[in-house]
Amino acid sequence: MDKVRIGIIGVGGMGSGHAGQILQGMVPRMELTAVCDINPERMKGYDKKIKKFEKSEELIRSGLVDAVLVATPHYFHTTIGIDALNNGLHTIVEKPISVTKYDAQKLINAYKKALKKNPDIKFCAMFNQRTDPYYIKMHELIQNGELGTIRRSNWIITNWFRTEAYYRSGGWRATWAGEGGGVLVNQCPHNIDLYQWLCGMPSAVYAIGGLGKYHDIETEDECCALFEYESGATGAFFTTTGEAPGTNRLEICGDMGKLVLDIGPNGRKLEFIRNEVNANDFIKENDGRFATPAIWNVNIPLPPGSGEQHIGIKKNFVAAILDGAKLIAPAEEGIKAVEIANAMQYSLMTHQRVELPMDAAVYQKYLQNLIKNSKFVKKTDEGANLDLKGSFAK
Amino acid sequence: MDKVRIGIIGVGGMGSGHAGQILQGMVPRMELTAVCDINPERMKGYDKKIKKFEKSEELIRSGLVDAVLVATPHYFHTTIGIDALNNGLHTIVEKPISVTKYDAQKLINAYKKALKKNPDIKFCAMFNQRTDPYYIKMHELIQNGELGTIRRSNWIITNWFRTEAYYRSGGWRATWAGEGGGVLVNQCPHNIDLYQWLCGMPSAVYAIGGLGKYHDIETEDECCALFEYESGATGAFFTTTGEAPGTNRLEICGDMGKLVLDIGPNGRKLEFIRNEVNANDFIKENDGRFATPAIWNVNIPLPPGSGEQHIGIKKNFVAAILDGAKLIAPAEEGIKAVEIANAMQYSLMTHQRVELPMDAAVYQKYLQNLIKNSKFVKKTDEGANLDLKGSFAK
Repeated sequence: MDKVRIGIIGVGGMGSGHAGQILQGMVPRMELTAVCDINPERMKGYDKKIKKFEKSEELIRSGLVDAVLVATPHYFHTTIGIDALNNGLHTIVEKPISVTKYDAQKLINAYKKALKKNPDIKFCAMFNQRTDPYYIKMHELIQNGELGTIRRSNWIITNWFRTEAYYRSGGWRATWAGEGGGVLVNQCPHNIDLYQWLCGMPSAVYAIGGLGKYHDIETEDECCALFEYESGATGAFFTTTGEAPGTNRLEICGDMGKLVLDIGPNGRKLEFIRNEVNANDFIKENDGRFATPAIWNVNIPLPPGSGEQHIGIKKNFVAAILDGAKLIAPAEEGIKAVEIANAMQYSLMTHQRVELPMDAAVYQKYLQNLIKNSKFVKKTDEGANLDLKGSFAK
Repeated sequence: MDKVRIGIIGVGGMGSGHAGQILQGMVPRMELTAVCDINPERMKGYDKKIKKFEKSEELIRSGLVDAVLVATPHYFHTTIGIDALNNGLHTIVEKPISVTKYDAQKLINAYKKALKKNPDIKFCAMFNQRTDPYYIKMHELIQNGELGTIRRSNWIITNWFRTEAYYRSGGWRATWAGEGGGVLVNQCPHNIDLYQWLCGMPSAVYAIGGLGKYHDIETEDECCALFEYESGATGAFFTTTGEAPGTNRLEICGDMGKLVLDIGPNGRKLEFIRNEVNANDFIKENDGRFATPAIWNVNIPLPPGSGEQHIGIKKNFVAAILDGAKLIAPAEEGIKAVEIANAMQYSLMTHQRVELPMDAAVYQKYLQNLIKNSKFVKKTDEGANLDLKGSFAK
C-alpha cells in the first residue's frame, strides 16, 4: 500500500475544506475516492471519478476507501466513527470526537475492538492546533521542566466571535438536539484539548456563563471556568462567541517562571520570563521582605504563522498508516476535552462544582432531558431537508 | 484654619512612610504634630516637637491634632477609627478600612454619627492607587461610555510576591487573630477597590485558592475568583503572594471594545481597541458568518509613572478639610472592597457560591471561629512585645 484512499463524510462545512486540500495535492499519498452527504447538492462540484454517497453506511462498505474522515455535525462523529471502525477503516473524526463523555467511551470502545482485529488501525482526531509551533514550544518547555512545577494558568480565548447569521446557517447549530452545546462543543474543543495537553486534566471544575446570552440560541455562548488540579495548581478558562474584539491569551506560571502566549489582531507573541532561581526556594531562603527573584526575558525563536494545521494532521494520519509514524492527535485522547467541556456545561447550568472524573451517565441523562424538554424554535437559513432534530432526539 | 495638624497612629510600617512624606514637606498645609505606637522604639527618631503617645486614646484626646491617620494592623482601623470620629477628628484609615463588613458597618456608623455633629468632618481611605492616571483613564472611558456596556473583565494581579521573611516580620501578619486574612486583606484591598470602582459590585462570587499554600501561614495566599454581576456581566480576579514573576493585567471588555492594562517588569501599557460598530448590533445585522467588527487601535496619551499615590491622597484630604474639595477615596466606599474580600475568603474556605450583599454577621461569626480554633504558631522575627494576638481574640 503506497497511498491512502479516503472518503469524506459530510462536505457541508469543514469537510469541503479537507476535500479541497486533498484535491489540490497538499496531502501527498492521500487520494480522495469518495464523498458522502445527506444533501446531494453539496456533492455536485466533485469530479465524477469521486464516488458520491448519500448514506455513510454505503460509503463505509463500498470497498473504495481505506480510511474515512468524519466531518458531520458532532453527534454523528460517534455513530459514523463506530461504524467505520467496526468495518476496519482508519478513521479521522473532526472535533469534538463526541458530544458527551458517554458517547466518547462508546467510540473509543469501538476503536479498542478494532485494534484487536488489526493492531495497525489508526484513529485520529482533527486537533489541528496541535501542529502550531507556538503550542508545541510551550508543550516542550513544560515537558522539559523549564517552567518548573505549574502553579497557575489562565486562558482567555474569546476570539470565537460569531454572528446570528452563523448560527442561522445550520439548523443543527447551537441546539441541544442537533449539536449538544454551543461554544464549548463547537469552537473550543481545540483549546480545551491543548489546555489539557499542556497543563493536564483538572480534578474539579466550576463554571459560570450563559445560554443564548449574546445570540438567539438555546446553548451556551459564554463560559468562565475555574479549574482545580490534583497537584494543587489552579487554572481558568474564559470563552464566548459574543465578544469583539476577542482575546487569545494563555498564561502558564510555574515556580521557574511564566509563559505567555498572546495571539491578537496585532500579531502572535510567545513571552517566556524565567526566574533565575526557583520561586519556592526564594520564598524560603531570601531575607528581603519585598525581594523577588531576578528574571530573564528569554527570546524564543519561532517561525511565523501557525504551522501546517489541517494539512499537517492529514499528513501525519497518512504517515501513521503507511509508515507507522506516531499520531499527533490520537483520537482516544479526545475524550479528555469532551469530559472537560461536559463538566463546564454541567457546572454552568447547575451552579455546582463538578469533580473529575465525571460520571458519564449523569451528564448523558442531563443532556437527554435538555433535548426532550427543549421548546426552542431555531431560526435557520437552510432548507427543511437539513433540520436534523429528529435524528438526535431519541 | 490654614493647615491640618495630623497625628499618625502606628509608625511601624506604612505610618513611618506617611510621616516621612509630611516631614519632607511633600504635603503642603499638613503638619505632623503627634505620633503614636505601642512600641516606643519606633518613635525615637522623631523630633521632640512631635508629641509621642503609646496610647491612641491619648493622642486622640490631646487637642494637638485636627486629624489622624490610622496605620496600625487592620483590626485597629475600626476601633481607633471609631474613637477618632467619635472625638470629632478628620480621619484617614489605611486600607482595608476594616477586616470585615461587620466592622466596616460599625466604623461607617460612627462616621455618620460624627457627620451629624459636624457636617464638614472628613473620612478618607488610603486607596492611593485611585490617583494612578492609568486607572483614572480607564474609569473615565467606562464612565463616558466609550467601552459601551461591560460584558466581561479579568484581572490577574499576582505581582504581590512575598517571602517568608516578610511574613515573619510581624507576629500579627497572616494570622486570623492578628490580621484576619492574607493576600485579600493585606495586599489586594487596592485592587479590589479599583475593580469595584471600575466595574461595579458583583452580585455573586465563587473562589478557589489556598491557605498557606506557598508560605508557612494560616491565611489565604492565593485566590482565584469568578464574579457575577446583576447586569449579566462576568468578572474574574486572580491573586497570590506566591508567584514570581507576577502579572498585573486587567482586561475589561464592553460591546464597544476592550481595555487592557498591563503593568509588568518591562513597563506599563494601556491598550484600547475599539469596535467601529457595537458588537451587539454587528451580531444581529451582519450577514457574514465569520465576520467581525472592524477595530481601531486607539493610542491613549498617558503620563509616565503611577501618579501621586500616597502623597496625592493626603493632599486631597487636606484640600477636602480646608477647601471643601471632593474626596478621591471616601472611606465609606471602602466597605465595598471589604465585602468583596470577605465573600472571596468565605467562598474559598467553604466551597460555596456567595451572593452579595452578604450577611455581615455570618462572616463575622465564621472569622471568630477561625480565631478561636486556630492552633497555628506563627514564627516571627519580632520581639515578644509585638505579639498582638491577645488584643484581637475577643
